[in-house]
Amino acid sequence: MRRVYFDNNATTPVLPGVLEAMQPYFGEHYGNASSIHHHGQETRAAVERARESVAALLGCLPSEIVFTSGGTEADNLAIFGTVQRAVARALPVARSNDHVITSTIEHHAVLNACRHLEQEGWEVTYLPVDCRGVIDPNEVKRALKPNTKLISIMLANNETGVLQPVTEIGKIAAEADVCFHTDAVQAVGKVPVRVDELGCDLLTISAHKLHGPQGIGALYVRKGTQLEAQMHGGRHERSRRAGTENVPGIVGLGKAAEIAREALERGDYDLTELRERLERELLKMEAVTVNAGGSGRVPNTTSLCFNGIDGEALVIALDLKGLAVSTGAACSSGAIEPSHVLLAMGLTPERARASIRFSLGKQNTSEDVEFAIRLVRETVGRLRELSPVWDNAPGSLESHAATKLVARS
Amino acid sequence: MRRVYFDNNATTPVLPGVLEAMQPYFGEHYGNASSIHHHGQETRAAVERARESVAALLGCLPSEIVFTSGGTEADNLAIFGTVQRAVARALPVARSNDHVITSTIEHHAVLNACRHLEQEGWEVTYLPVDCRGVIDPNEVKRALKPNTKLISIMLANNETGVLQPVTEIGKIAAEADVCFHTDAVQAVGKVPVRVDELGCDLLTISAHKLHGPQGIGALYVRKGTQLEAQMHGGRHERSRRAGTENVPGIVGLGKAAEIAREALERGDYDLTELRERLERELLKMEAVTVNAGGSGRVPNTTSLCFNGIDGEALVIALDLKGLAVSTGAACSSGAIEPSHVLLAMGLTPERARASIRFSLGKQNTSEDVEFAIRLVRETVGRLRELSPVWDNAPGSLESHAATKLVARS
Repeated sequence: MRRVYFDNNATTPVLPGVLEAMQPYFGEHYGNASSIHHHGQETRAAVERARESVAALLGCLPSEIVFTSGGTEADNLAIFGTVQRAVARALPVARSNDHVITSTIEHHAVLNACRHLEQEGWEVTYLPVDCRGVIDPNEVKRALKPNTKLISIMLANNETGVLQPVTEIGKIAAEADVCFHTDAVQAVGKVPVRVDELGCDLLTISAHKLHGPQGIGALYVRKGTQLEAQMHGGRHERSRRAGTENVPGIVGLGKAAEIAREALERGDYDLTELRERLERELLKMEAVTVNAGGSGRVPNTTSLCFNGIDGEALVIALDLKGLAVSTGAACSSGAIEPSHVLLAMGLTPERARASIRFSLGKQNTSEDVEFAIRLVRETVGRLRELSPVWDNAPGSLESHAATKLVARS
Repeated sequence: MRRVYFDNNATTPVLPGVLEAMQPYFGEHYGNASSIHHHGQETRAAVERARESVAALLGCLPSEIVFTSGGTEADNLAIFGTVQRAVARALPVARSNDHVITSTIEHHAVLNACRHLEQEGWEVTYLPVDCRGVIDPNEVKRALKPNTKLISIMLANNETGVLQPVTEIGKIAAEADVCFHTDAVQAVGKVPVRVDELGCDLLTISAHKLHGPQGIGALYVRKGTQLEAQMHGGRHERSRRAGTENVPGIVGLGKAAEIAREALERGDYDLTELRERLERELLKMEAVTVNAGGSGRVPNTTSLCFNGIDGEALVIALDLKGLAVSTGAACSSGAIEPSHVLLAMGLTPERARASIRFSLGKQNTSEDVEFAIRLVRETVGRLRELSPVWDNAPGSLESHAATKLVARS
């Protein structure tokens, strides 16, 4: 059965060159990178080469890269590592005196870390987005308080692909002397990301979102930024993250970073073309819209609303025919609630539930796009045919519930 | 150059069968295990199969296994995850009302997590060990207080290999209704480890210590044990550990667990024989002793004290000739202080510094042992020859400083 994978924002296949680079570090060069003998030195050298590759991709110093087990850990380290330090200093002053600014469209790794802070007595401002899915930098400015300790605003949204005005927010943060973190997991490797242009103090990346392996990521930590380790043990990563270095994973992230940097330097726009073709053709269908289509987006992502359709039913129907897409973040799969990102943009729950995300990867071809176009047309057409509501009221928001019932029966 | 690796307590080579099992999950079956489509289902199935293998090795339910990024994260999750929950419940009561029991010979992942608790106002009791490197269960009993929330005592020490009386401690913990964690990183795969026999509520394992990959480990969490997640984000691992599942890593841990279980069931005692031969031959040398040689130990580890020698100089000299050993934990490499484990056993700093650890792995052969015996004899002999102190006072503790100077010059 032919299978096409358009869920690269959930995870990407490891590129052959990346796996090849990792391979020797499993059974052949297998030292603990903290050991002082030959085996340790060899793996230490590999780790430091990878650190240089990641730094080259982000335009920072190798010493500013802290390897973590992935994006969630890096986000959590950024948030808890900066604010807890402030708390420790302020003790025994009540924690509720401190303040964090984030947005309503962040990934759950940021949102739920912030909710945890709230439970501990912190004040958190969740900034809204406009209907284009964009955060207004002026809102960030207005939200600032004398006790604001951290701003965490993502670079590219995982569901819509919308790029946020991080450079402007970086300037506001710098003026206010507030630490600024950006979750760049969905941007790195897709668009040029340079920490100095963004003006961020902390930036999260994840290897498996850019054709590297799962289980490894990194946090960029601007020199001079105070960061308290969240895992305690050995003195790894300059005492910023304890735990034996995942050498093959780090090597894989380094290689993925190198490949991504080279592609970006070449101006590799294949995914933009593929995404545009996909959107253009699917928009020819009745009652289909692009969520945040007018906004600046990473080239590989599109979120499409198929009016009158239940997104989850569509995902399942497409999967049965060989096309993998998603209703939103994989981390939220199975959740009953519609996407928090689309709701934040002002979509009704019905339209949010009628939306699915297509996210392309380096492995995808124009044949994959043709396959997807044909399949989506057929499947959406069939699901709508099955819906008693759709015929009567095409485009009607109320058609959703009925379609869902039919699709699941 | 022939190289023999006797530092398997630092990290082990990934077995060919383990790498083979992992291989397809990088570029071929590459889904996010939380995705609902085919790619997600396929990787989810692989994750759950691996969970069953790990559970089979430990004699627990698959649902009691939480995958983490390694031993350090699992230790930290066990410690912070159990006590912080208690704190949250007790708020606004002062934190200093609560108490944890651990030992002076724990790995730094436990020790430094406990030190962090102390900084936050907790009371921690660090139990001593006797000269055989063993914790007295009666000491655990005596240390119990009405406000004791957690006992964390390792199963096998990473430096000496000494097995601790965890079963007895488990009974004491159960009687007192105190949560009991054991770091079993250095025991699992080397000796049979069954959670019900140990009576622990939490148990840490690390893949790369049992010929699995780096960057993956697990925490056994007995059903009903209250555990607060330390990473916040998606609802992975039943909301006990957020972050996209490291599918190839988890598959690798599962395969390593399967291989280890089969070997233990076969009664594979090769490493005991190799270790005994190594010890027997090296003990024929003058002024060499086994640290904790009379205690029950895991079969692969021996810590030998070469009187009058600087351990670090010996490690470096042996490495130059192709033998990889260590002075202690890789995580502490480069540390100026002598081993906290050997000091806790009552060794003088000089004898602690004169000790090195040999830790064997599945890949080692009797030829490797012969090679090591020859090399150690030659090298220790030569280092002692170079020492002006050794000739005058063989076995003298004071000879250490002089040897060190000579060895480094």
